[in-house]
Amino acid sequence: MSQTPPERDDTDAWLPEVQPETYGISPELVRSVSEALESGRQAEARDLAAELHEADLADLLESLDRDERPQLIEALGGDFDLEVLTYLDDSVREEVVEALEPKHIASSLSDLNSDDAVDIIEDLDEEAQQRVLAALPQAERMVLEESLSFPEDSAGRIMQRELLAVPSSWTVGETIDYMRASKDLPDDFYDLYIVDPKHQPIGYVPLSRAMRTRRPVLLTEIMNEDMRTIPIHMDQEEVAYVFRQYGLVSAPVVDDAGRLVGAVTVDDVVHIIDEEAEEDLLKLAGVQETDLYSAVLDTTKARFTWLLVNLFTAVAASVVIALFEDTLERIVALAVLMPIVASMGGNAGTQTLTVAVRAIAMRDLGSGNALRFVGKEILVGLVNGLMFAVVAGVVAWAWFDMPSIGLIIAAAMVINLVVAALSGALVPLGLEKVGVDPAVASSVVLTTVTDVIGFFAFLGLATLFLL
Amino acid sequence: MSQTPPERDDTDAWLPEVQPETYGISPELVRSVSEALESGRQAEARDLAAELHEADLADLLESLDRDERPQLIEALGGDFDLEVLTYLDDSVREEVVEALEPKHIASSLSDLNSDDAVDIIEDLDEEAQQRVLAALPQAERMVLEESLSFPEDSAGRIMQRELLAVPSSWTVGETIDYMRASKDLPDDFYDLYIVDPKHQPIGYVPLSRAMRTRRPVLLTEIMNEDMRTIPIHMDQEEVAYVFRQYGLVSAPVVDDAGRLVGAVTVDDVVHIIDEEAEEDLLKLAGVQETDLYSAVLDTTKARFTWLLVNLFTAVAASVVIALFEDTLERIVALAVLMPIVASMGGNAGTQTLTVAVRAIAMRDLGSGNALRFVGKEILVGLVNGLMFAVVAGVVAWAWFDMPSIGLIIAAAMVINLVVAALSGALVPLGLEKVGVDPAVASSVVLTTVTDVIGFFAFLGLATLFLL
Repeated sequence: MSQTPPERDDTDAWLPEVQPETYGISPELVRSVSEALESGRQAEARDLAAELHEADLADLLESLDRDERPQLIEALGGDFDLEVLTYLDDSVREEVVEALEPKHIASSLSDLNSDDAVDIIEDLDEEAQQRVLAALPQAERMVLEESLSFPEDSAGRIMQRELLAVPSSWTVGETIDYMRASKDLPDDFYDLYIVDPKHQPIGYVPLSRAMRTRRPVLLTEIMNEDMRTIPIHMDQEEVAYVFRQYGLVSAPVVDDAGRLVGAVTVDDVVHIIDEEAEEDLLKLAGVQETDLYSAVLDTTKARFTWLLVNLFTAVAASVVIALFEDTLERIVALAVLMPIVASMGGNAGTQTLTVAVRAIAMRDLGSGNALRFVGKEILVGLVNGLMFAVVAGVVAWAWFDMPSIGLIIAAAMVINLVVAALSGALVPLGLEKVGVDPAVASSVVLTTVTDVIGFFAFLGLATLFLL
Repeated sequence: MSQTPPERDDTDAWLPEVQPETYGISPELVRSVSEALESGRQAEARDLAAELHEADLADLLESLDRDERPQLIEALGGDFDLEVLTYLDDSVREEVVEALEPKHIASSLSDLNSDDAVDIIEDLDEEAQQRVLAALPQAERMVLEESLSFPEDSAGRIMQRELLAVPSSWTVGETIDYMRASKDLPDDFYDLYIVDPKHQPIGYVPLSRAMRTRRPVLLTEIMNEDMRTIPIHMDQEEVAYVFRQYGLVSAPVVDDAGRLVGAVTVDDVVHIIDEEAEEDLLKLAGVQETDLYSAVLDTTKARFTWLLVNLFTAVAASVVIALFEDTLERIVALAVLMPIVASMGGNAGTQTLTVAVRAIAMRDLGSGNALRFVGKEILVGLVNGLMFAVVAGVVAWAWFDMPSIGLIIAAAMVINLVVAALSGALVPLGLEKVGVDPAVASSVVLTTVTDVIGFFAFLGLATLFLL
């Protein structure tokens, strides 16, 4: 099926094996650049870094020590391409921007697509932002200021203004001629949009289709009307959903009046998908955002709150244990065994919880199938509860030579694993329902429930039947 | 900066507000289809489903009950587009394929790009696969069989064979003429590849660039030589890395001799990115893969192993507690407080662990900056350890009116939070080093460490100083 025009010759049996390519930067490169900077060999550092792809240069900057970063920027001088900034982690980006001349920023910003330019200046502090904006030509400043007026994480922020919109009366030939004459098209684009006289998009033509159509054909004859437009206020998470769901490479953004004002491209969406996935993962563990490059104190502060909440839940569990001090004093074996029930509940509940949080984020779980999901999880919890009841019961019986303690841990295990399944499913669904991000709060609520119920069921049953 | 040719008129102040679009399927639609199927109104169900985008129809099938899915397939009959299968979850896909006629599959498979065709048949069981392949024309069968011969999750599996490769002697005009004449190009593509006489790619031209260049210009004059080729055996995770790192929309795939054999496009990569992110998230919680649509017993079995491992670690913690039975018998307050230290260690360690697992997966953490990362995490653990030592110490002192128990919980807290940071950082780095997926095993190892050290430090210090 491969499209291979003639002039091909693949009879070279003596052809050398091609080495598998390696991408990204090597630890050796980082070391070499670092050494060159430390010993003042600026030219050597520049030569090592100058040929790198912008994304790799960004990785190199992130890998260097804090004091080496401005040195490398200085060594690169005018060769430093601002696009590198779009690949940098927020905290490193700020450092790098501080090391750059505002004039350099302003003059290079014009070469970027508007979405990249916004990406760079939106994270600057107020004062730096004003300085950079003031140094820009008025037309560009206005475009950027308008983009910045949209809420963070909205389509208005991530779209690029540069796009190709043509009137519905045009033919393929006219469009090609227009493209050849125009000097101000976006760097790369994949679809062209057809607009009506009100500048509302009525369809799109993928470039590959336009290119293989003869010149006299009208664009409206080959356009795809089944188009997914993005309202300018749509949240970026929603934008990512639309791209992912319909396998888009680009989509038109429309304002409140339905007029075409920009385009979102898939490369931005890949970043968003990464960000959202990372957020869910980190939030479940109580980390606000990637803090790989943050300072120790910032990281400590950000994690403190979550740990404090966890301390309260741990104390709540202790309060439950304290209810049974008399029982524990008489049968110390209970103190030895009690963490098992709580820990198994926490782990089983986390399994359910994680599946639910991910499925909600991917929109595979909603009110339509919530009941079925909860029912299934309870069954899974019950079956696993029964199996682990047997295992834990036998272990406890054998260990302390008390059949009764085996029966009690078994009963507590079934109760806690069913409760764990129920709360692992209901907590994220409930939080989503009331508008709280399930990834943030679910696991604290869950482990509180499984600890409290775990200790209460085990020690409570023991108090009832062993004393 | 927007490219807007004339013929625009945006003075319509009376223009109605455009309703924000909603994408995806609604619970109401699922209910309507379900009711139509249940009461035998096949035509109604077909009408409701027929106009849906393939991705939405896939969601609809996933949302239906198990017995309704084949009914809907039957209702849709010949209208059922096989592309829907590429959007389905594995377990649902198998059900749907079973409900389809092998002939229908074989005849529709030819309309798909080769990567989608492979995607569909690779998950069928051996017998169904053979039946479908046997029904295909020989040329297509051979292409698919070759693709299937590459390891799962390799570039050879996810690439499409259809692409546009042109010799280096061609001009833009010749290429456009060739595209207009050719009937067998891929559906959509974004780059065209220039190959040398050995069919090795030497550069690429984005379609948008080709289209705005005048006909007599040679492709080699406008091609981009800075090209990221994908070796056919490259793992899909690596492919996703290359796309993400360099913001690609498509990349050429080469065989061992460096010849162009296919292309990977960004829509496939978005799926891979989702899959990999999901895997990391679920594995950390001990879930093998999305089991939202799996049967209860499959889910129970898949989660059992992880819980069994956790039972061993919980028993290990109990063994540590058992060492201090005498101490616990004398001071029952210790039993009340001991879960606090263990739980805080587990939570703090999980924070570090999650950051490390994500950073390793995103290649932000490696041998180059591992030492700095571990150092920073220890510091964070120490600072948070000291703060929570104060909080927990005061709580314990006030609760049991024993200053000594406050001091002991404080000391144990510092020890456990530093150990948690150290193991949260070292466990995933070590597992990665020895070739074990850090997402799978890290959290079990970590919680074992924090439980054991937590109980040992707290009860051990109490035994030393309180008895």
